[in-house]
Amino acid sequence: MINTIQSAFVRLRHNRAFEFFVIAVIIISALEIGAKTYQLGPGAMTLTNYLDIFITVFFLFEIVVRFIAEENKKDFFKSGWNIFDTLVVAISLVPISESEMALLARLIRIFRVLRMISIIPELRILINSLLKALPRLGYVVLLMFIIFYIYAAVGSYLFKDINPVLWGNIAISMLTLFRVMTFEDWTDIQYETMDVYPMSWLYYMTFIFFTAFAFLNMVIGIVVGVMEEEHAKERNIGQPTMLELQEQIQSLSKQIKDLNRTKID
Amino acid sequence: MINTIQSAFVRLRHNRAFEFFVIAVIIISALEIGAKTYQLGPGAMTLTNYLDIFITVFFLFEIVVRFIAEENKKDFFKSGWNIFDTLVVAISLVPISESEMALLARLIRIFRVLRMISIIPELRILINSLLKALPRLGYVVLLMFIIFYIYAAVGSYLFKDINPVLWGNIAISMLTLFRVMTFEDWTDIQYETMDVYPMSWLYYMTFIFFTAFAFLNMVIGIVVGVMEEEHAKERNIGQPTMLELQEQIQSLSKQIKDLNRTKID
Amino acid sequence: MINTIQSAFVRLRHNRAFEFFVIAVIIISALEIGAKTYQLGPGAMTLTNYLDIFITVFFLFEIVVRFIAEENKKDFFKSGWNIFDTLVVAISLVPISESEMALLARLIRIFRVLRMISIIPELRILINSLLKALPRLGYVVLLMFIIFYIYAAVGSYLFKDINPVLWGNIAISMLTLFRVMTFEDWTDIQYETMDVYPMSWLYYMTFIFFTAFAFLNMVIGIVVGVMEEEHAKERNIGQPTMLELQEQIQSLSKQIKDLNRTKID
Amino acid sequence: MINTIQSAFVRLRHNRAFEFFVIAVIIISALEIGAKTYQLGPGAMTLTNYLDIFITVFFLFEIVVRFIAEENKKDFFKSGWNIFDTLVVAISLVPISESEMALLARLIRIFRVLRMISIIPELRILINSLLKALPRLGYVVLLMFIIFYIYAAVGSYLFKDINPVLWGNIAISMLTLFRVMTFEDWTDIQYETMDVYPMSWLYYMTFIFFTAFAFLNMVIGIVVGVMEEEHAKERNIGQPTMLELQEQIQSLSKQIKDLNRTKID
Repeated sequence: MINTIQSAFVRLRHNRAFEFFVIAVIIISALEIGAKTYQLGPGAMTLTNYLDIFITVFFLFEIVVRFIAEENKKDFFKSGWNIFDTLVVAISLVPISESEMALLARLIRIFRVLRMISIIPELRILINSLLKALPRLGYVVLLMFIIFYIYAAVGSYLFKDINPVLWGNIAISMLTLFRVMTFEDWTDIQYETMDVYPMSWLYYMTFIFFTAFAFLNMVIGIVVGVMEEEHAKERNIGQPTMLELQEQIQSLSKQIKDLNRTKID
Repeated sequence: MINTIQSAFVRLRHNRAFEFFVIAVIIISALEIGAKTYQLGPGAMTLTNYLDIFITVFFLFEIVVRFIAEENKKDFFKSGWNIFDTLVVAISLVPISESEMALLARLIRIFRVLRMISIIPELRILINSLLKALPRLGYVVLLMFIIFYIYAAVGSYLFKDINPVLWGNIAISMLTLFRVMTFEDWTDIQYETMDVYPMSWLYYMTFIFFTAFAFLNMVIGIVVGVMEEEHAKERNIGQPTMLELQEQIQSLSKQIKDLNRTKID
Repeated sequence: MINTIQSAFVRLRHNRAFEFFVIAVIIISALEIGAKTYQLGPGAMTLTNYLDIFITVFFLFEIVVRFIAEENKKDFFKSGWNIFDTLVVAISLVPISESEMALLARLIRIFRVLRMISIIPELRILINSLLKALPRLGYVVLLMFIIFYIYAAVGSYLFKDINPVLWGNIAISMLTLFRVMTFEDWTDIQYETMDVYPMSWLYYMTFIFFTAFAFLNMVIGIVVGVMEEEHAKERNIGQPTMLELQEQIQSLSKQIKDLNRTKID
Repeated sequence: MINTIQSAFVRLRHNRAFEFFVIAVIIISALEIGAKTYQLGPGAMTLTNYLDIFITVFFLFEIVVRFIAEENKKDFFKSGWNIFDTLVVAISLVPISESEMALLARLIRIFRVLRMISIIPELRILINSLLKALPRLGYVVLLMFIIFYIYAAVGSYLFKDINPVLWGNIAISMLTLFRVMTFEDWTDIQYETMDVYPMSWLYYMTFIFFTAFAFLNMVIGIVVGVMEEEHAKERNIGQPTMLELQEQIQSLSKQIKDLNRTKID
C-alpha cells in the first residue's frame, strides 16, 4: 500500500498543474506578506490569518509529497535546495502566540518568498553561479576588511576627539569608512577633520583609491574569470585539442617512415 | 497605373535626397518639441502649430510611400521598426482639441523623436543588440526584485513606526531601498533606524552588498557574454574548426594505409 | 650653410640633455601656472612675468628646431601632435596687454600643460587609443542624447509648474537629468514631483535604468572590444591561421594521391 | 652547536602548531589595537600594556627564528615580504615614552595588522597581482593628474572670487575637483558658479566625462588585460602552437616528397 501512495505522489509531483499551483501559492504568500504592510481592515486581517494557515499547511504537504516521491530518502537531503525548503517550512510551523513574538513570526514568514528561487530552475542556476564565485571572493573580502580595519584604527586614534559620533571606536569608524566608500556626504566628514589636521585629505584619498580599486578589481576580475572559464569549456566541447592534432600528425609521420622502410626492405 | 505609382514610390524611397529630407523633418520635429518648452510669443506659437500639421502630414505621406513601395505588403508588418513607425504616426493623427488633453497630445508627439532611432541604421543595430541582451537580463531582474521585495517587507515590518514616510508600506519601502542602492543620502536613513535598532546597519550593508554585487554581475556578465559570442563568430568566419582539421588528418592517415596495403598486394 | 644649421638642429633635437631640458621647461611652466593661483608678493610676480617670457621664447625656439630638423617640411604637419604643439605655442605668442583680456591670456597659457602629453610617448599612445575608441562611442552618445532629449521634453512639459528652476525649459531639464544620472540629490527632485504626480517615480526609475545600462554597456563594450582586437592581433603575429593549416593538409593529401597514381602507372 | 640551533629553528619554523600560533598572535595584536579605541578601565589598560610587550617580544623572536632558519642569510632580504616584516617589527621596538609621542607609537603599532597579509599566502598572491598592474597604472594616473591640474588651474582662475573656500588656489581646486569626480554635492558647486558664468556647466560636464571615461578605461582595461594574459598562459601550457603544427605538416610534406624521389630512382 505504501508503494501505491509513493507512486501516486511521484505522479502528483511531476504533474504540471500541481507545479503551477505550487508557484501560485508561493506568489500568493509573497503578496500576502506585502499586503500585511498596509493598514488592513478587520475583514482583510481575518482573511490573511486563514490564508496564512492554508499556506503553512500546503507548504508542509508539498514538502512531504516531494520527500515521499523521492526513491532514495538519503538523496533528498543531499540537495541543498531541499534542506533550504524544509528549513523554511519547519521554521514557519513553530507556533508563536505571544504578542511580543508576533514581529518575529512575521519576519520568519518573509523567508517563504525565497522559495521562489528554489522553485524556478533559472534562478537556481543564477544563485549557484554566484555561490561558485564566492570562495574566490573570500580572500578579497578579507583583504578589504584588513584595509578597513587599519584605516578605522588610524581614524579612531586621530579623529576621536573631533567627532566621537563618527570616530568614537573602531566599529563606528568602520561604519563611517563604509559611508566614505559609498561617497555619501564624505566631504562633510573630510572638511571637519581638515580643520584640525589639514593634511587629512590624504587619509580619505588613499582610502578611496585602495577600496575603489580593490573592489573593482575583485568584482570585474571574478566575473570575467568565471565567464572566461565557462566559454572556454563550451568552445572546446566536441573539439580536439592542439595536442591531439599534434599526436595524430606525428603518427602520420611514423606511418610514412614505415612506408619508406618497407620499400627499402 | 497602380504599378506606375508603385515604381515611382520605390524610386522616391531609394532617392538619397528624399532620405535626407526625411531625417531633416525628424530633426525639425525634435527641435519644435524642444522649442515648445520655452515661453514663446504668439507669432512663434502660430508657426509651431502650422509646423506641427506639416510634420504630421509629411510623416503620414512617408509611411504611405514606404508601404506602397513594399512589394509584398505582408512583409511590411514583419519588421518591428515599421510597426513602430506606423504606431507613432497613427497616434499623432488622433485629433485632440479639448484643453485638458493638450498635455497628452504634446507628450505623444515627443515619441516622434524616437523615429530618429528607426531611421539611422547604426542606432537600430545598437537597440537590437540591447534587446538581444534583454532575455538574459529577465531572470537577473527577477532575482533583484525578490531581494528588493524581501528587504522591503523586513524594512516595513521593523521601521514603519520610525519613519512612515520612508517605510510606510512595501511599495514605499521598495522606493526607499532603490534610493539606498543609488547611495543617495542613505546614511540619514540608516542613522535614523540605528537609534531604535543599533544593529540595523547590518540590514543596509547586506542589502548594498547583494544588490551592488548582483547588479555588477548582471551587467558585466551579460555585456561580456554577448561580446564574446560576437567576437567568436567573427573569428571563425571562413576558418575551419579543429574538428574539421582532425577529420582531414584522419583521411590522410587512411590514404597512407591504403598505400601500404596496395604495395603489399 | 643652411645644411650645416639643419644638421646641427637634427643633432640638437636628438640630444638627450636637450630632451630633458624641454621636459623640465614644460614642468616649470606647469608649476608657474599653479603658482599664479596663489596670492603672490610683488617680487614673485615680477619673477613669473620674466619666466613667462622665457617659456614663450623657449617653446617657440623648440618648435623651430623641430621644424628645421624635419627633412621633409610637409611631413611635419602630417603629425597631429606637431600641429597641436604649434597651435599651443602660436596662441601664447599673441600679445594681450589690456587688463580685461588678462584672464583670457592666463587661461590660454594653461594649455601649455597639455604639451606634457605630446612630449611623453606613453601618454601619446594612451590618448591615441582613447581617440580610436571615439568613433564607436559616437553613436552611443547620440542614442544617450536622444534618451536625454525625450525625457527632458516630458519632464519640462509635466514638471515646469512644479519647479521652473529645475524643469523650466528643455536645456535646464537636460542638466537636471544629468544630475539625476549622477545620483546627486535626485530623491529631493523626485519627492517634489511625486507630491503632484504620485506615479512620477516611474519616470526617474526608467530613466536611471536606461542611462545606467546604456552607459555601462557603452564603456564596457567599447573597452573590452578594443582590447580583444589588440590581443587577437598580438596572438596571431607569426602564427599561421587554421585556414592555412587546412590548405597545407589538403596539399599533402594531393601529394599522396599523386604517389598512388604513379605507382599504378 | 650553531647548527643544532639552526636545525631546531628550521623544524620550529615548519611546525604547523607554531604557524597557527603566529597567526593567533597577529590576530590578538589586531584585536588589541581595536580594543584600545574603546574607553578601557584601568585593569584592561594594564592588560593591554603587558600584551603589547609580549606581542613585541614574540614578533622579534619569530623574525629571528625565520632569519636563523634561512640557510643563505642573503636570500632572507631578497624577499620583499621579509624586509616588510623586519621593518614593522623594528619600528615597534623603538621605545617612545613621552606623552606627545604616544599617539605616534600607537599609529605605528597599527601596521602590525599588515603582517596578516604577509603571513597568508593567498593574500600575498593578491597583493602581488595588484602590484603587477601598478606600472601600467602609472601613466594613466599621470594623465588623470594632468587633466586634474589643467581643470584646477582654469577653475582657480575663473571661480576664485566666487568661492575662495572651494577654488582659492590650485591645491584646493584639485581637492574640489576630486569631490566633483565622486559626484559628492557637485551640483551645489555648479549652481554657485552658474550664477556668474551661466555656461560653466560645460566645465563640469566635460570634466566628469573625461575623468569617468579615463578612470573606467584604466581600471577595466588593466584588469581585463592582466586576466587575459594569465588565461592565455594557462591555456597554452602543454599545448603546441599553430606554428609548431605547421612545421610538423611541412616536415611530413618533405617526407612524402622523399618517398616520391626514392621511387623514381
